[in-house]
Amino acid sequence: MFVQAQVLYSFTAEPGNNELSVQEGETLTLLNQSVGGGWIEAQNSRGQTGLVPEDYIQVRGQCCLFWLYPQTQLDCVVADPKKGTKMYGLKSYIEYQITPNSTNRPVNHRYKHFDWLYERLMEKFGCAFPIPCLPDKQVTGRFEDEFIKMRMERLQGWMSRLCRHPVVANSEVFQLFLTYTDEKDWKIGKRKAEKDETVGVMVFTTMDPEIRELDPTEVEQKCETFSRFTRSMDDRVKDLLSVGHLHWKRCTGPLQKEYQRIGKAFQNLSSVFNTSGYQGEATLTEALTATGKTYEEIAEICAGQPKKDLHFLMETNSEYKGLLGCFPDIIGVHKAAIEKVKEADRLVAMNKIGPQDKHTMAKNLSTMSYALQAEMNHFHSNRIYDYNRVMQLYLQEQVQFYETPKRKMHLTHRFSQ
Amino acid sequence: MFVQAQVLYSFTAEPGNNELSVQEGETLTLLNQSVGGGWIEAQNSRGQTGLVPEDYIQVRGQCCLFWLYPQTQLDCVVADPKKGTKMYGLKSYIEYQITPNSTNRPVNHRYKHFDWLYERLMEKFGCAFPIPCLPDKQVTGRFEDEFIKMRMERLQGWMSRLCRHPVVANSEVFQLFLTYTDEKDWKIGKRKAEKDETVGVMVFTTMDPEIRELDPTEVEQKCETFSRFTRSMDDRVKDLLSVGHLHWKRCTGPLQKEYQRIGKAFQNLSSVFNTSGYQGEATLTEALTATGKTYEEIAEICAGQPKKDLHFLMETNSEYKGLLGCFPDIIGVHKAAIEKVKEADRLVAMNKIGPQDKHTMAKNLSTMSYALQAEMNHFHSNRIYDYNRVMQLYLQEQVQFYETPKRKMHLTHRFSQ
Repeated sequence: MFVQAQVLYSFTAEPGNNELSVQEGETLTLLNQSVGGGWIEAQNSRGQTGLVPEDYIQVRGQCCLFWLYPQTQLDCVVADPKKGTKMYGLKSYIEYQITPNSTNRPVNHRYKHFDWLYERLMEKFGCAFPIPCLPDKQVTGRFEDEFIKMRMERLQGWMSRLCRHPVVANSEVFQLFLTYTDEKDWKIGKRKAEKDETVGVMVFTTMDPEIRELDPTEVEQKCETFSRFTRSMDDRVKDLLSVGHLHWKRCTGPLQKEYQRIGKAFQNLSSVFNTSGYQGEATLTEALTATGKTYEEIAEICAGQPKKDLHFLMETNSEYKGLLGCFPDIIGVHKAAIEKVKEADRLVAMNKIGPQDKHTMAKNLSTMSYALQAEMNHFHSNRIYDYNRVMQLYLQEQVQFYETPKRKMHLTHRFSQ
Repeated sequence: MFVQAQVLYSFTAEPGNNELSVQEGETLTLLNQSVGGGWIEAQNSRGQTGLVPEDYIQVRGQCCLFWLYPQTQLDCVVADPKKGTKMYGLKSYIEYQITPNSTNRPVNHRYKHFDWLYERLMEKFGCAFPIPCLPDKQVTGRFEDEFIKMRMERLQGWMSRLCRHPVVANSEVFQLFLTYTDEKDWKIGKRKAEKDETVGVMVFTTMDPEIRELDPTEVEQKCETFSRFTRSMDDRVKDLLSVGHLHWKRCTGPLQKEYQRIGKAFQNLSSVFNTSGYQGEATLTEALTATGKTYEEIAEICAGQPKKDLHFLMETNSEYKGLLGCFPDIIGVHKAAIEKVKEADRLVAMNKIGPQDKHTMAKNLSTMSYALQAEMNHFHSNRIYDYNRVMQLYLQEQVQFYETPKRKMHLTHRFSQ
């Protein structure tokens, strides 16, 4: 994880000195703050790295601690689900084609391979990052086109989210999943990943933020802040999902039926009026019929609308519900580490551990805390991106949703005058 | 009741001959078709009467048999409900002020006077015309402002409908109700009306259509046509009322609550996001809050809408439900008369009645049938007028109903981009 800094004064690099030219106002990612001699190693937004005088920059607050994001964002396309069979046709399965933008070479995976990847990632990163759940397993109807399409969309969402995480995306197991060359390569890689020992809390040992060590109380406070936020968001996301689910059912159920009934009622009245044999009611019966038809259209619009907007809002919130569900465990790991460091003084006094051990524990806790901060910043920036996108779409579709009935009613009104 | 005719050729009246000048294409109401000598007495749309040569006009089909409508349509304003007391304050009641456009002089009536009028009209005209029911009696809460306002509106509707009926509006009892000068006048008039003997089927004896006598089978057919129409319309009106009632309850109940919940869910999510401490999410949280507020507004719009449009649609349909409920009795009276005329031959053969009696019975039946035709035409023309008016209003309000959420969502979308 990395700290960001803002350039206070422009600086021009001396050639051949491994220096980096920077412009006032530019944002840098600090790669190494302990170079010494008044220099800091930094990377600019174009990916160039080099030394910058530390007086020329201002390190941002700790809320601005970020993972180092790659120049090119990894992504992949999940497509082309194909039915395969094995055991002479006794068993059948769906294979998806996954093409990463890094190699542009497709690989094939079945759902159970995704599941295997999920298990590995949980094992390796589950203490540090929220690893989103895989889309539900489902046994009945799992070869129906509708279901396959939905699962593919969700696997796409799952993969894209993992690709966006710089640490996960860069991990050996994830790269194996996306870029294995042949069956043998896959099998060897699989075995290696299953034997990986840098899992669980060990993953923090691979990180070295090289910044100020934190006091356990400070870590505890930060931890509490994150915990509070994720718990509150979890509650709110669940509320939205619950009322969204209710609304979906109402729109596609009783409300659709009611609009259909209203539509029929207007049209039936129009039909009776048409049998009156009385002159001069064409305008009225046309208005009644048009109103009836408009209500039938509203019924369809109403029933079809959730798929157009609520669906995406629900999908995004479901994904976040999954992510948020991971935080209690992550927070739990942190709290346990805090307790351990708090106990360390006693253990040192009892000679159960040495002062050096205590220092290592405190340093590890700081690393964990910085990792959590970087992770929260990752979470927030993704959250803002995801919710912005889904709200844009939602509002756009809602405008359309009200526009159509309005236009129809307006036309009917105009022609009935 | 009167037959209408169209002028085929223009005709200029000789002065002093009681003739009427007419223009080609003009519509006339025929007052007397048995003047003789090739002349017919007619009235033009400006109320002028006189003789017209019968070759110059074409009598319209029997579907165009109308009551003679007055030049100026009678109407009245029901207003200014006032609480009164009697028996030294032991009993209290509401008195309404009714001002007819014929005298422009207000008279006062309590609900029980309306009820008395209803009884008289039912007795006198119930066999011939649908007399709409009075708005419901209600004991609990009958002095609450909301209830008084609603009852006044309905009494207004009831009176206006009766004013529009030329035969009812012109009757002595109805005129008494609208134009009595003082308490004594009212009491005398009341007593007289209660002793009126031209009630029930006797009312047909006051009408003389002076046109072709009808065969009982022909009358039966017409009767069947009207019966079928009114029964079908009754069914359809009840359907519309029933689904309208359901929709009203949904809009002001579960749907309003659901929109409120959605609104709260968006706003709560926005509140949590605001506590993230992360920069750059103002646009998102504003969009979420605005969407939430829009949903709360939609909840109010949704709950308030029925009063703006469905209310009037329901009131009109309720009135028509009342009117349609009168037709089975009216049709029943006709069917009994048809049976009687059909039996007449047998009775003549048995010497129970004379041939002249049979002729009178047949003539009376024709009158009844013509009266029913005129009444149906009255019903149809009012129906078209009433439904046109209510549909205009309904559609106009529906356009507004969809316009507001659309505009709000559009604004939110624009500002969130």
